[in-house]
Amino acid sequence: MKIKDLGEFGLIKELTQLLEINDSSVVVGFGDDCSCVNISDQLVLFTSDVQIEGRHFVKALISPQDLGWRVVSVNVSDVVACGGKPRWGFISLAVPPELEFEYIRQVYKGMEEACQYYKMNIIGGNTSSSEKIILDLFLTGITDRFVPRSGAEEGDYILLSGYTGLSRAGMELLQMKKGSYEDFENRLIKAHTKPVARIDIAEKVKKFASSCIDVSDGLAGDLSHILDSSKVKGILFKENLPISSHLKAFCKKYKKDPLEYVLYGGEDYQLLFTVNEEHLLQFDDCFVIGKIEKGSGLFLKEENNIKKIIRKGFEHL
Amino acid sequence: MKIKDLGEFGLIKELTQLLEINDSSVVVGFGDDCSCVNISDQLVLFTSDVQIEGRHFVKALISPQDLGWRVVSVNVSDVVACGGKPRWGFISLAVPPELEFEYIRQVYKGMEEACQYYKMNIIGGNTSSSEKIILDLFLTGITDRFVPRSGAEEGDYILLSGYTGLSRAGMELLQMKKGSYEDFENRLIKAHTKPVARIDIAEKVKKFASSCIDVSDGLAGDLSHILDSSKVKGILFKENLPISSHLKAFCKKYKKDPLEYVLYGGEDYQLLFTVNEEHLLQFDDCFVIGKIEKGSGLFLKEENNIKKIIRKGFEHL
Repeated sequence: MKIKDLGEFGLIKELTQLLEINDSSVVVGFGDDCSCVNISDQLVLFTSDVQIEGRHFVKALISPQDLGWRVVSVNVSDVVACGGKPRWGFISLAVPPELEFEYIRQVYKGMEEACQYYKMNIIGGNTSSSEKIILDLFLTGITDRFVPRSGAEEGDYILLSGYTGLSRAGMELLQMKKGSYEDFENRLIKAHTKPVARIDIAEKVKKFASSCIDVSDGLAGDLSHILDSSKVKGILFKENLPISSHLKAFCKKYKKDPLEYVLYGGEDYQLLFTVNEEHLLQFDDCFVIGKIEKGSGLFLKEENNIKKIIRKGFEHL
Repeated sequence: MKIKDLGEFGLIKELTQLLEINDSSVVVGFGDDCSCVNISDQLVLFTSDVQIEGRHFVKALISPQDLGWRVVSVNVSDVVACGGKPRWGFISLAVPPELEFEYIRQVYKGMEEACQYYKMNIIGGNTSSSEKIILDLFLTGITDRFVPRSGAEEGDYILLSGYTGLSRAGMELLQMKKGSYEDFENRLIKAHTKPVARIDIAEKVKKFASSCIDVSDGLAGDLSHILDSSKVKGILFKENLPISSHLKAFCKKYKKDPLEYVLYGGEDYQLLFTVNEEHLLQFDDCFVIGKIEKGSGLFLKEENNIKKIIRKGFEHL
């Protein structure tokens, strides 16, 4: 069987069964946004996310500084989704020997800018050569409570920290390679090239969320991860799904369905989480988009009409 | 300026200046085999080392199981060189979608075998797709004393934990693609495909070594890192440099100079370290190959003849 026949999630499922964990200090192993170990009573989070030229980015379509910002942000997003503060990064860099050093200097400038914004440090690294540019960041964070994917409970509300679908619209705009873009188009492009991890609400999420994930594969796909891990059913309220004015303008201009972008657009790096009703007031800056019920599966409710949402997340394979 | 004009070590030097570390819990940043942070009074080591198809390995020349073993071992070697015990690994995997899953299953089998041997666990991972197979392992370890490259002092002896040059001879044998190999040739090939990190002497090195590095770039190159970091001069005693019987047989058969392999052959993953005379007895299973003096540079002493060793380490760019 080939890897592509398994798909990304099938591959992950198979691989995690191959490695046995025998260590009582490991609090969380495979299967969440971060792994977690207990070091001298401090919970430490581990994650990594790679940017490979031609797969995760096209060199001509993103500035090296934005690329550096991006690789830090996508990792910070995973740490924040588990209730953590990012602390120490370790960068594994592989570059073609023919590449201009100035390009890498700009990438590092972007990483440094992100480190300052997120109040973390990159403290070590490894370099080697390759045909394509590979930036693999390993990030550790700390927390005093691990917020898992698996904690959603019947009666919890489903919250979203901001708009989704913007990054996908931005990517499509970039791929059009137009000579000039309208203002709203440039904003959508920026949402794709320079996503911002939601560290600003990390503390509240750590304190009050029953489960959390970051939206990297798309709202429907990532919510399904929470539902599957928590063994519950999710109902999204269609009229509550937020559609940004920029995405509306995009969909009008290019005759697209906004719901397709909101539900299935990946790489927005918003936080998607569940909270008990008593904590709802803590999150008046977030969108309440649905509710958790007993059962399984993801559904969309429009007035009195409920239909199952097909799972169509973005797979990286 | 292109990356290749800087070289691996020039690139590292430039890059480390671009990232500022502002965190009092960081004990060691860039420039050693591992970075080190203090988490609740526990010293934690971070390292990473990548295996990229076509750069670090040729798929046809190494079994997937040995490849899995190898990526763990080269990382453990870095942790051990800093006085640490390996604990938690995080694997970042990128594979071509067309690859057979069985290949990756074998790689994981090799990683699991290595984890059991080194008493550590791989506790998380990330997967994505790429044209070439990329295995990037991030490894954390713990220690109660960080053994730096920079601790060598005048009067210390230079010790080596085992033979060098074997891995390079093994790699050259593999590249000959012969139909069959003699027994000593197979042993050299194994030294290349399945190196063993010297975890067996890690505890002693942690307690007694004044400085340490693992031999990944070649004895001369890696010793130069110790000398430069410690701001001292190194004298190697030619008659003390160990040449394995297998390497002797190889050099005889293929008319090669053993010294070339011993001094400049990389990827043996032996430990190269310095100790004060009073601790010399602790290491009767290691080779005493030289001495540290005041000054700078690396020299080879043969009877009363001393000559400077040109620095010709293996650069990965």
